[in-house]
Amino acid sequence: MKLYFILLFSFILSVQSTLDAQVILNARDDDKQEKQEWAIIIHGGAGGMQPQSLSEKRAAQYKSSLEKALSRGSELLDQGIDGIDVVEQVIELLENDSSFNAGRGAVLNSQGQAEMDASIMDGESLNAGAVAGVKRIKNPIKAARLVMDSSRHVMLSGQAAEEYCIPYGLDTANQRYFITQKARQALKRARAKEKVNKSGTVGVVVLDREGHIAAGTSTGGMTNKRYGRVGDSPIIGAGTYADDNTCGVSCTGHGEMYIRLAVAHDIHAMMAYTDLSLQEAVDIVIEKKLPSINGTGGIIALDKYGNIAYGFNTSSMLRAYATPEKREVEIFRD
Amino acid sequence: MKLYFILLFSFILSVQSTLDAQVILNARDDDKQEKQEWAIIIHGGAGGMQPQSLSEKRAAQYKSSLEKALSRGSELLDQGIDGIDVVEQVIELLENDSSFNAGRGAVLNSQGQAEMDASIMDGESLNAGAVAGVKRIKNPIKAARLVMDSSRHVMLSGQAAEEYCIPYGLDTANQRYFITQKARQALKRARAKEKVNKSGTVGVVVLDREGHIAAGTSTGGMTNKRYGRVGDSPIIGAGTYADDNTCGVSCTGHGEMYIRLAVAHDIHAMMAYTDLSLQEAVDIVIEKKLPSINGTGGIIALDKYGNIAYGFNTSSMLRAYATPEKREVEIFRD
Repeated sequence: MKLYFILLFSFILSVQSTLDAQVILNARDDDKQEKQEWAIIIHGGAGGMQPQSLSEKRAAQYKSSLEKALSRGSELLDQGIDGIDVVEQVIELLENDSSFNAGRGAVLNSQGQAEMDASIMDGESLNAGAVAGVKRIKNPIKAARLVMDSSRHVMLSGQAAEEYCIPYGLDTANQRYFITQKARQALKRARAKEKVNKSGTVGVVVLDREGHIAAGTSTGGMTNKRYGRVGDSPIIGAGTYADDNTCGVSCTGHGEMYIRLAVAHDIHAMMAYTDLSLQEAVDIVIEKKLPSINGTGGIIALDKYGNIAYGFNTSSMLRAYATPEKREVEIFRD
Repeated sequence: MKLYFILLFSFILSVQSTLDAQVILNARDDDKQEKQEWAIIIHGGAGGMQPQSLSEKRAAQYKSSLEKALSRGSELLDQGIDGIDVVEQVIELLENDSSFNAGRGAVLNSQGQAEMDASIMDGESLNAGAVAGVKRIKNPIKAARLVMDSSRHVMLSGQAAEEYCIPYGLDTANQRYFITQKARQALKRARAKEKVNKSGTVGVVVLDREGHIAAGTSTGGMTNKRYGRVGDSPIIGAGTYADDNTCGVSCTGHGEMYIRLAVAHDIHAMMAYTDLSLQEAVDIVIEKKLPSINGTGGIIALDKYGNIAYGFNTSSMLRAYATPEKREVEIFRD
């Protein structure tokens, strides 16, 4: 009789799971998970930094930059500011900080220019905006936001993106503003076929007080990339994705591999279609899928409950995350 | 007793489905489906054509163009040519045919130029290539293939893409070659805010004799699009995706909506992570997901067994498909 009940229960479960598969809810059962009031996770790029070779001074500088961005984002979220605005403002801060490969401090392409990509996505409406290959917009993330809000399009590229944005009053900057000594040296080393640390793309994912998820990514791409190369950062589904029903994601790493796997959307899809946790989904991509095509890099993500997840298969990923309950800033593995 | 067996069977099923969800194979159980020796599906764009307003002559012309492309693709596949080569060659044929919005016959951007996008993906290796915004490459699909095979990158944009490809000997053409009277008239109507038929993007998905899947898409984009706009066609995961373990997909329609939903990758993800059939996955996107954000267009796809699926929420989609067993060329709903 006991077995009978077990089987009956299984039967109900299996009918239920069949129904779920039929309906393809973009939403799992609300399984009484505790929900954070807000949450934020930031990355400053995954790369090959080693604990022994990173100077204390430089480590402190990175951590201080991440701390500032995390504090700003946490404050805004705590005040109830919309997630999409928080993503834009925190990325703007990181773009203005020359420690990162985004905005000022962007790495240089094969022609010695800063050529930047950014994207942003709103998980409530699935609206999105992106720019690829801009060279004179001070804050590419603001250009991505403008494309999302004001144009009929999701993605604009190159000079056309600049010409679209400038009449709206976005701040411009000349190449001298973007190019740092560090970026120049990295290009020199790359041209000499020396190993270059690929770290530095920035990304932010937030859950706001209204339960909305937003994500954004901004980068100068790869040192010595061919001019005109589009990486994953400005591609919705590759470098950035957000859906209130599942999660928000921002990626950093060898962009080509992230495009081929549509990594950001793949994390979303695993949340939508499987019973995996967000961290399990991230781990599968970082530990199995990316290595299967020799892809290196990292992922940050958070789900609709404010659960935070991240992973990287490089030696370092600059990252910071916070909820009302906890706060962390880290560079290497724990 | 009978109920007991039904319940026992359900129990086994539910355990099995739990295991599947845990393992996340990119492969479903080989459930003894019959496998086609090869298969091909082609689209020539989803749009607003109506049976009553399409002249018999024009309909015959479209069908004849599709027939030729289908015959060529079927022959090559039957001969055992690699799927990726078949996709490239069939799309080249469609690009050279001014009936379609790709290569010669491409629609015009807001500046009156043909500005074309294309992408291609190999489901065996997950290699991919794409170009966005090229204006003087005769066959954008060949440029996408070249980027895939010869560059370190997946996507190159604008003039930089042209400058990469031309030294490899790809044929160039001037704007006069691309621009047709039909495209000029469409731009005129669009500028006058008249309704413009958005049809014409081309796409091909094949399963070859080795069991490899490949997909590609080529387009001039939307009439009167802002110059520099990147639609879904050159975006791996949005307009094109292929994975031998699941399926191949090519999309046509309002590209911005396809980017926001990462449609091509979403079909792949449903095949990888759910028990839906390919046609069910296509139907969910066409009937539920796209309409939820006012997205219109179509999808063609085939899975690793050579099952063919398609859908469109417009009034027409030019399409043709074949296996060794059947062959169809269609414009409207059955």
